[in-house]
Amino acid sequence: MNSETKFLLPEDRIPRAWYNIISDLPEPPAPVLHPGTGQPIGPDDLAPLFPMALIGQEVSAEREIEIPEPVRDVYRLWRPAPLYRARRLEQVLDTPAHIYYKYEGVSPSGSHKPNTAVAQAFYNKEEGTKRLVTETGAGQWGSSLAFAGNLFGLDIDVYMVRISFDQKPYRRAAMETYGARCVASPSEETESGRAILAEKPDSTGSLGIAISEAVEIAAQNDDAKYALGSVLNHVLLHQTVIGLEAMEQMEMAGEDPDIVIGCAGGGSNFAGLAFPFLGQQLRGGRTRRAIAVEPMSCPTMTKGTYAYDFGDTAHLTPLVKMHTLGSGFVPPGFHAGGLRYHGMSPLVSALVDSGLVEAQAFLQTECFAAGVQFARAEGIIPAPESTHAVKAAINEAERCKEEGTKRTILFNLSGHGHFDMQAYTDYFAGKLTDQPHDESAMREALEKLPEVAAE
Amino acid sequence: MNSETKFLLPEDRIPRAWYNIISDLPEPPAPVLHPGTGQPIGPDDLAPLFPMALIGQEVSAEREIEIPEPVRDVYRLWRPAPLYRARRLEQVLDTPAHIYYKYEGVSPSGSHKPNTAVAQAFYNKEEGTKRLVTETGAGQWGSSLAFAGNLFGLDIDVYMVRISFDQKPYRRAAMETYGARCVASPSEETESGRAILAEKPDSTGSLGIAISEAVEIAAQNDDAKYALGSVLNHVLLHQTVIGLEAMEQMEMAGEDPDIVIGCAGGGSNFAGLAFPFLGQQLRGGRTRRAIAVEPMSCPTMTKGTYAYDFGDTAHLTPLVKMHTLGSGFVPPGFHAGGLRYHGMSPLVSALVDSGLVEAQAFLQTECFAAGVQFARAEGIIPAPESTHAVKAAINEAERCKEEGTKRTILFNLSGHGHFDMQAYTDYFAGKLTDQPHDESAMREALEKLPEVAAE
Repeated sequence: MNSETKFLLPEDRIPRAWYNIISDLPEPPAPVLHPGTGQPIGPDDLAPLFPMALIGQEVSAEREIEIPEPVRDVYRLWRPAPLYRARRLEQVLDTPAHIYYKYEGVSPSGSHKPNTAVAQAFYNKEEGTKRLVTETGAGQWGSSLAFAGNLFGLDIDVYMVRISFDQKPYRRAAMETYGARCVASPSEETESGRAILAEKPDSTGSLGIAISEAVEIAAQNDDAKYALGSVLNHVLLHQTVIGLEAMEQMEMAGEDPDIVIGCAGGGSNFAGLAFPFLGQQLRGGRTRRAIAVEPMSCPTMTKGTYAYDFGDTAHLTPLVKMHTLGSGFVPPGFHAGGLRYHGMSPLVSALVDSGLVEAQAFLQTECFAAGVQFARAEGIIPAPESTHAVKAAINEAERCKEEGTKRTILFNLSGHGHFDMQAYTDYFAGKLTDQPHDESAMREALEKLPEVAAE
Repeated sequence: MNSETKFLLPEDRIPRAWYNIISDLPEPPAPVLHPGTGQPIGPDDLAPLFPMALIGQEVSAEREIEIPEPVRDVYRLWRPAPLYRARRLEQVLDTPAHIYYKYEGVSPSGSHKPNTAVAQAFYNKEEGTKRLVTETGAGQWGSSLAFAGNLFGLDIDVYMVRISFDQKPYRRAAMETYGARCVASPSEETESGRAILAEKPDSTGSLGIAISEAVEIAAQNDDAKYALGSVLNHVLLHQTVIGLEAMEQMEMAGEDPDIVIGCAGGGSNFAGLAFPFLGQQLRGGRTRRAIAVEPMSCPTMTKGTYAYDFGDTAHLTPLVKMHTLGSGFVPPGFHAGGLRYHGMSPLVSALVDSGLVEAQAFLQTECFAAGVQFARAEGIIPAPESTHAVKAAINEAERCKEEGTKRTILFNLSGHGHFDMQAYTDYFAGKLTDQPHDESAMREALEKLPEVAAE
């Protein structure tokens, strides 16, 4: 075992291929269905939205998909990302556990999102896209796509959930620094947006609405395509650079994780870290616990249904089989952080359903408490989303102490919280609560799941 | 020459000693004078404010001062910091210059400040200090001392310039995350503060006032000491880890900088990068240009006087010989970023006076324009302070293009701008201006320099 605090890889150890977990799954993923016919869709159905290279990756069964050199070249700006041993946190917790974290906050936009943003921008540029349209919540994804699009000479339009647009202008400023256009959603620019505004002029927006707006623009404009920051297979694929690097770094540290943890909104940062490890296991390697952590106020995996549902509010997207709270679900107003999506990546959902991935949910105040404890021990202030992974890791480390057992815990610190200090301010001021949960709203949204013929 | 984008050192290459430029100066620095007697002060005069170890470092003539292991151990959380070749910026500028930057934004608080905060917290803890008191402007320094103090179990009180306290709550939230107490300055907690408030109840504060408050508290409380984030010799000493690492990394890159650049408010990040290179030169090595860059709205080196002056507004500090705009100087209201101090480090001032260091001043709008150009090329959004170094580096690279000469330029990217996006928002909205400069206010402050007997 190594005495270092952080484990760094040289640039030539940036992975040369992404890892595709579909290749190792015992059965193929449930098909994606056409919203009109209920029948499985083909590449042509997706062509208005995505470049063919990404559609190919979405359905590929190859284990390794080569990372193009221009993408690796941009990755060099921050990758390989460091892996840390949380020695000071271990001391504070007085635990026999060894805690490691992969730190993705070193990227230009401060989170893991550029791993896929750069790849998506590259393939779009290759296939002649002029403009990429997307949605964003608090802005982690929007600022990352703005960064990536700028490097490849694409125009970037971001539909940003209005409440974040108004209350969290800092990531918007980052998007504009990178040259992107940022529009509050719902907007007057789309049919979907106008329909929402007609019904509710003071709508504060949701991710589902912003997705509808972005998809609509992409579908109607030949030179525009759509980009999604999580959920889809190709997005999770691109994030596997996290886990591939972490495997090599854990070897440098002379350890092998017993537990792998990531927070999960759409599932991409969790999958990015966990899939390479789960792939080993699926190919006959050792069994590890993989924990996907979500907020109790958007409990997709722990309280949702595993069923076909739409990805957006206006029902413009195909139907995917996933854990969902219903496409009309909006997290309660007291929920401060990200991880607000009504659904979950189909791949992560299938693994949760099969028992290979464990889902846990925590209250936001206990996550912030864990984030503060982490910051005071390790120095880095976690993004509110990442505090969910921190909370789960601390829980497991405390369990090790109770049981007197040494386990090796690895979690993904998916981003720093420097853009999110208002949430910490609110937490310290006692303004963050965990109530009231509106169980009836959740049930109502769940009752509206589409009926699907093909199942 | 190396084809890498970034140059990383392993943890065991964190420097084992700081570099003390005083050892290589042709003559000793001008003495620090007692504000009452005008005579040189001794260690006892400083003992109420600083632990003896730091007072010793302040006057040491040793070339190398060992970095204590507990300090190096905290440095491991982010050091060695990466050195980057700005290949994409070079392409955009179409310059034959090679541009490198040392990136200090990877520290927990996002700037170079923890390099000295950790050392100061360590020595204070060693000598029994319970509470460290300091001032901060926008909060780079305050959040760094909060981070460091927490790790060594010290209480941290930060007097924060009121206008930043009110308008920039995000670094305040970071201080509180690390467990520090943050007070708007001028405050009712000190005589200095009450005197200012009696005269001007709506005072928005200044660094000089906040220093007076912090010094007063430290002087009056046996268990409290004072910490300063720049200016003093020992602070610059601690920052030399930047340049020592950079020298080794430039060797990895197979290049040697012709020009070394840093922004300068009190002078510590500039000195941290430049002093190890200047030391080589002072010992007979090759001549390089070293450029310290300041804002035109606080033009200490380019328009100030090199004379004895107080470090604070209430004249509680000793007198030091430095470039100064007068201790009553407050930067004009339109100035958005940091680098607001009325004085300059005595060591940097002496080197500017002797011609070994070149001073340049730029308008804030041209600095933000350079910052945006850099962000779009390299991904990292610079702190407003750091954009001054970016601007100077781009200028030199453009000069290389005009002259058709290849030069190697190295600058210090002292911090990221994720806490400062409001300033970028204001810049894009056209709210940042470079006018009006109040020349008469500057002259007035300069006329009030103290008369000093010992000169």
